[in-house]
Amino acid sequence: MKRYRNGEIWDFEHQMPVALGASDVILGLDGGTTSTVCICMPVIPFSDPLPDRPHVLARAVAGCSNHNSVGEAAARETLEQVMAEALMKSGSNRSAVRAVCLAVSGVNHPTDQQRILDWLRDIFPSHVGLYVQNDAVAALASGTMGKLHGCVLIAGTGTIAYGFTEDGREARAAGAGPVLGDWGSGYGIAAQALTAVIKAHDGRGSDTTLTSSILRTLHLSSPDELIGWTYADPSWARIAALVPVVVSCAEVGDEVANKILYDSVEELASSVKAVVQRLDLCGEDGKGSFPLVMVGGVLEANKRWDIGKEVVKCIIKDYPGAVAIRPKVEPAVGAALLAWNFFMKESLRGCFKS
Amino acid sequence: MKRYRNGEIWDFEHQMPVALGASDVILGLDGGTTSTVCICMPVIPFSDPLPDRPHVLARAVAGCSNHNSVGEAAARETLEQVMAEALMKSGSNRSAVRAVCLAVSGVNHPTDQQRILDWLRDIFPSHVGLYVQNDAVAALASGTMGKLHGCVLIAGTGTIAYGFTEDGREARAAGAGPVLGDWGSGYGIAAQALTAVIKAHDGRGSDTTLTSSILRTLHLSSPDELIGWTYADPSWARIAALVPVVVSCAEVGDEVANKILYDSVEELASSVKAVVQRLDLCGEDGKGSFPLVMVGGVLEANKRWDIGKEVVKCIIKDYPGAVAIRPKVEPAVGAALLAWNFFMKESLRGCFKS
Repeated sequence: MKRYRNGEIWDFEHQMPVALGASDVILGLDGGTTSTVCICMPVIPFSDPLPDRPHVLARAVAGCSNHNSVGEAAARETLEQVMAEALMKSGSNRSAVRAVCLAVSGVNHPTDQQRILDWLRDIFPSHVGLYVQNDAVAALASGTMGKLHGCVLIAGTGTIAYGFTEDGREARAAGAGPVLGDWGSGYGIAAQALTAVIKAHDGRGSDTTLTSSILRTLHLSSPDELIGWTYADPSWARIAALVPVVVSCAEVGDEVANKILYDSVEELASSVKAVVQRLDLCGEDGKGSFPLVMVGGVLEANKRWDIGKEVVKCIIKDYPGAVAIRPKVEPAVGAALLAWNFFMKESLRGCFKS
Repeated sequence: MKRYRNGEIWDFEHQMPVALGASDVILGLDGGTTSTVCICMPVIPFSDPLPDRPHVLARAVAGCSNHNSVGEAAARETLEQVMAEALMKSGSNRSAVRAVCLAVSGVNHPTDQQRILDWLRDIFPSHVGLYVQNDAVAALASGTMGKLHGCVLIAGTGTIAYGFTEDGREARAAGAGPVLGDWGSGYGIAAQALTAVIKAHDGRGSDTTLTSSILRTLHLSSPDELIGWTYADPSWARIAALVPVVVSCAEVGDEVANKILYDSVEELASSVKAVVQRLDLCGEDGKGSFPLVMVGGVLEANKRWDIGKEVVKCIIKDYPGAVAIRPKVEPAVGAALLAWNFFMKESLRGCFKS
């Protein structure tokens, strides 16, 4: 994405007439650790139910927008650019926007939320509904089509479990980054595999096929070289990219790789269980039904060793009412549906007041 | 330490006359993850045994010189500056230097060693004996007074076990950094304590006094704020500084803190055992005696919960011939003794040849 000088981002609004018949729009933004996606969709009449396959006018993609990783200024620029691009591509502009939901990773505290809301307020007119959430919330909404109820488990480079009750209580588990023990994540799985290679090499651990598989993948000749490799670029995504290698080794029966994957299943399931228990999502008898939205590369069901399926099995043992959902739309669409849901509720509340 | 332009580092050699009666010197340098120490000592006659309490002419201290952490150029500048400062303080200069041993962390591979040797060669005249080692080797030498035999366990911010047989074979375990599982290190202990606080907070783990103790120490009000705290500055030393808090909690009986410390004891002992086994340090009957040098803040015996003592107990169960040594001199002195030992051996070999 090209670099803009201050203000330039929105220049297209003066240069391009809004398309004939263009109507009001919603923006939904999903900002994860590795990329940021913004989609623009038409508003949905208040009288209509939220659609199963919402119509997307335009989609724009940018890099990481986690302020913890790239800093406040760079995060803000990325977010602003990707929103401008989505509007421009859909032949629309800010005057047509009714509601925006920014669902970004790194929003862990009300102060994070407020800081982002403050600068969003400077960008959009005052009547626009603005909402800021953790990116996990958009992922949940992508599985429940905009409804905040149930629990989402995300396991990609990082991992988090996030849940909501129908009356608006919320809870989360994990999602604190690698230093703080997100061991079920893609990063966690790969870091443990790398550790196993080092331990096998220096005599602390058992031999494992992970050694030859990982060295071959990284074009290295000795486990010693892994030290320089990990230091050379500390990006978590680069390390997490080794997950398929771990899964392949586990599939051919490597015990070390299998233990790493089973440990990760336990960790991921324990995050969900902690959220379900704190929110009483399964009711008093422990058998109530709730949506369990499963998102992220680690949980994808395209392998013989299916981490996602194992996690669900492990959760259902304790909470048989969990209904696993793999979303049919992407999280950015979830964010847009969420924005519209929030905006409708606020508008209706406003109507009753006046 | 002030910044120098290219070459300026050695300007003092032209400006300051060498002290009357000044004689030849050795430089020993210990470059760890958090600081770099260089000492300058007078040469020891070949006929004398290496002294128990060597005379140190001058000592200089600088920041991190691990090329993996700060980059090649900054590491080199730090190393050059700290050597110049030690020489200047001792009223000496490069023409008086006979041997130099740079023992720096981050030297994990012969290519690292060669790169540092190459630029050292540019700094010192060709007759000077130059030696580059991993910093663990200097720590071993500080316990054995310059003799390369036995095993050293370092556990400070990071951890490594490094051993040598009398006939020159060597082996190491751990020392690969936090991504690659140095869980017994100060960083490892503290990261696990922080993880325990997060897990207690989000419902995945048991309550622990670590929560209130760590939050109080860091002036934070909620475990959520730990996420921002760890992202704000990824330095391992900053995280490792929490070890005393973990030890205090363990001392008053906190089960979570005790488990973390016992796990760390197991990890540290397993590094030493791996080295001892690979080198057969305890002979064929497994009862042979060897020096076990213990170095670093985590192993210091100044607490009721004595991690170092527990590690030794754990090692002695398997290898009763381990003789624990806590060095009386610092690793930089070990590096200087090592330089002199290497230099003497090379000189004697030269004599026999000619």
